[in-house]
Amino acid sequence: MENIPVQQKILSRNDEIAASLRQVFDRQGVYVINLISSPGSGKTSLLERILPVLGPRFRCGVIEGDVQTENDARRIARLGFPVHQIITCGACHLDAQMISDHLDRLPVSDLDFLCIENVGNLVCPSSYWLGEDAKIVILSAAEGDDKPVKYPAVFRRAAAMVVNKTDLAQWSDFSQETAIANARGINPGIEVFPLSCRTGEGLLLFTDWLSGRISAKKA
Amino acid sequence: MENIPVQQKILSRNDEIAASLRQVFDRQGVYVINLISSPGSGKTSLLERILPVLGPRFRCGVIEGDVQTENDARRIARLGFPVHQIITCGACHLDAQMISDHLDRLPVSDLDFLCIENVGNLVCPSSYWLGEDAKIVILSAAEGDDKPVKYPAVFRRAAAMVVNKTDLAQWSDFSQETAIANARGINPGIEVFPLSCRTGEGLLLFTDWLSGRISAKKA
Repeated sequence: MENIPVQQKILSRNDEIAASLRQVFDRQGVYVINLISSPGSGKTSLLERILPVLGPRFRCGVIEGDVQTENDARRIARLGFPVHQIITCGACHLDAQMISDHLDRLPVSDLDFLCIENVGNLVCPSSYWLGEDAKIVILSAAEGDDKPVKYPAVFRRAAAMVVNKTDLAQWSDFSQETAIANARGINPGIEVFPLSCRTGEGLLLFTDWLSGRISAKKA
Repeated sequence: MENIPVQQKILSRNDEIAASLRQVFDRQGVYVINLISSPGSGKTSLLERILPVLGPRFRCGVIEGDVQTENDARRIARLGFPVHQIITCGACHLDAQMISDHLDRLPVSDLDFLCIENVGNLVCPSSYWLGEDAKIVILSAAEGDDKPVKYPAVFRRAAAMVVNKTDLAQWSDFSQETAIANARGINPGIEVFPLSCRTGEGLLLFTDWLSGRISAKKA
């Protein structure tokens, strides 16, 4: 079986396409994030919280990646932001070619901030660069504080970790300190934002950090 | 890119190896489950709950699949059951070749029940048959009731869905009725077991169902 060489060839070709995407994003001055987490950790909920805060200052757009359904794109469209859904029909991650094929469905040249919400999967998406400026990983408190150690690749490559559902921590064995120590053991420079999309607690620090990044690229 | 034909070739070769594994399992009269869920939905916690209940009646063994760490195997070993850890070093699922390569590390001919705990991933493991009698998917209440619709493949192929962390449902927007309706919309025959590994509620129905399956194969 030629699994590994084929995989390397695919990843290398992906990186070439992602580099071209990045040139487009840089030329337009649009800051791009690639949002990665397990299913149900709150990627779309986070966007529903941050887009209304960022919207008055920045022109925002979203690409949604899902194995099936357009549910997430509908949730974003309700907020009035441009959004395009990519349905992967079984594929476990977005790749740069998919982004390239669909990019003309969004007014990228008019955007300051583009969020790509990846397929819910803590393993495969971490290997595929989509031309983004930063990967942001979400860990739900309900998933447990050991996940950075068990799924290290995405935590190693992420600029920031959002610890979501902090309101559930009190009902589980989750230790925020352990989760942060585990993530920083793999990636000492990772920024950490504990928050709850349900209660709104902690969201301001995250939107401030993101605003700084978007402004810096726009300038 | 030859991604899709290569993938088909890999899956077809996987099925051949899995069929050989199944012959071994059938000859030995060992009932095998393939436990699949997102990261942190409670696969190992479920095993920690059910093995002590099944242990007095059946000879049980476990194969643990993880991207990194032997943490899960250590948790099972503490209970006194034979366990072997497969570390995939980045791979997002177990395949039949991995099981075949490691099977001699467990006393399979002495077992009645073998549980294979897959890598935490709701997408990729569903495509790889490991020779098991049944796939069992776990959905955590904290993940949301929409997951069967968004990740249909594993729910379509599973004999049973365990709805875990029912104790967290009251603190989230999770509707058990909606989750079950979504799963049965994809797979009308799927058995459903709502339970909480934390409180123990609902576990008896699941262990009874599993005992029936193990006994039937042993007979």
